[in-house]
Amino acid sequence: MQVAASSKDSNFTTIPSRSQWNIDPDAAYLHYTTNETISGVEFHAVPEVDGLPLVADMSSNILSRPVEVRRFGLIYASAQKNLGLGGMAVVVVREDLIGQPLPGTPSIFDYRRQADNGSMVNTPPTYAWYVAGLMLEWLKEQGGPAAIEARNIRKAEKLYAAIDASPFYSNLVDPAARSRMNVPFHLMDASLNNRFLADATEAGLVYLKGHRSVGGMRASIYNAMPEEGVDTLISFMREFERKRG
Amino acid sequence: MQVAASSKDSNFTTIPSRSQWNIDPDAAYLHYTTNETISGVEFHAVPEVDGLPLVADMSSNILSRPVEVRRFGLIYASAQKNLGLGGMAVVVVREDLIGQPLPGTPSIFDYRRQADNGSMVNTPPTYAWYVAGLMLEWLKEQGGPAAIEARNIRKAEKLYAAIDASPFYSNLVDPAARSRMNVPFHLMDASLNNRFLADATEAGLVYLKGHRSVGGMRASIYNAMPEEGVDTLISFMREFERKRG
Repeated sequence: MQVAASSKDSNFTTIPSRSQWNIDPDAAYLHYTTNETISGVEFHAVPEVDGLPLVADMSSNILSRPVEVRRFGLIYASAQKNLGLGGMAVVVVREDLIGQPLPGTPSIFDYRRQADNGSMVNTPPTYAWYVAGLMLEWLKEQGGPAAIEARNIRKAEKLYAAIDASPFYSNLVDPAARSRMNVPFHLMDASLNNRFLADATEAGLVYLKGHRSVGGMRASIYNAMPEEGVDTLISFMREFERKRG
Repeated sequence: MQVAASSKDSNFTTIPSRSQWNIDPDAAYLHYTTNETISGVEFHAVPEVDGLPLVADMSSNILSRPVEVRRFGLIYASAQKNLGLGGMAVVVVREDLIGQPLPGTPSIFDYRRQADNGSMVNTPPTYAWYVAGLMLEWLKEQGGPAAIEARNIRKAEKLYAAIDASPFYSNLVDPAARSRMNVPFHLMDASLNNRFLADATEAGLVYLKGHRSVGGMRASIYNAMPEEGVDTLISFMREFERKRG
């Protein structure tokens, strides 16, 4: 594996510009993750890679927006955020990339066998599959990926705007790379973190604790989070700041 | 892979006696499946293998009886019959067999990493795990594996007895190797198969169609099937024979 680009220098708050990527001319494919849930960084455009097969982990933002599938060699997503339950992965793979598994590849990961058997080489994760179907029906009722994208943009923009407008909260991610799914933020006074979480829980706002590796707070606002949920969080944050700021 | 023994000559209706097995002296382990669901063949004793690590696929009869775990190097079971839902596998592995994964083994199949991380190297199949917990609680309430084994023996014995007592039905599996979980049987007059299935469905007895590779009927009587369900099936079979035999 060769790393084509890293944002480690910015503590993972940016996406290195495409011109700085160092792609191995012998590479078989280029892999990237379309949304990163810990720091809250998301690609808002598909990178140009001159015909190299693009492999994308879309686990945390699949179906949050329309995707031009034809631009990818392979898309995969563990289905537990916008689609289904933990214990299932969805793979979309270009026909010509199927059929050359490494020796020793377990048969359930041989895409040729899966494609030839309706994704049922083994008993599939039936319940997760069923729930994914319900979520796809729900998404259609919402108007599909374009409609959900518009809502996701509104949700994210108002939350980032509230954070940026306050001296009490901060988010350090480059605005061009901010995630619409995961909005991490810090209280400038970290000694108030536990108070914030306790008050939030009391107000019915849960799971706001940031990932242990970065601390602070994180609002995950996947498709299932209604716009009213974000409004409630923003009101709570303003009120908390008024009381404790 | 070397096949130590096969019952192909008997059309998979027997288990070759241990003395006939041809075990490679250089083998790293011996693998067998403790219950075979299609023909309905089950090992009722753990084979003696002179210290060779025994690897067992217990997917279809785990927790249907007590098991002397110490006799196995590794036990695995896809959890969708007596434990949990499709989309989860349970692995019980001897400490000294952990930690030598083949190069390229995905990290979720590296038992050292799983053991060190509470089986949560990745997000686990949470719902299947939760359901497995409910099924384990239920099993305890039933009296545990010994109590469920006694019930499973009663269920299987009365169903095989009904089949053997009738000239209308047959099961060709060696009585010493008959499965307690899956009881396949044939109507001697196969032209009545569709009638049998339709009448059974009308009587509330479903999923009795045998596996497509062997045809006929199959009653899967896992832990969750109460004894009354088997009694109802036997009554139905007798009545069907009386009307159509």
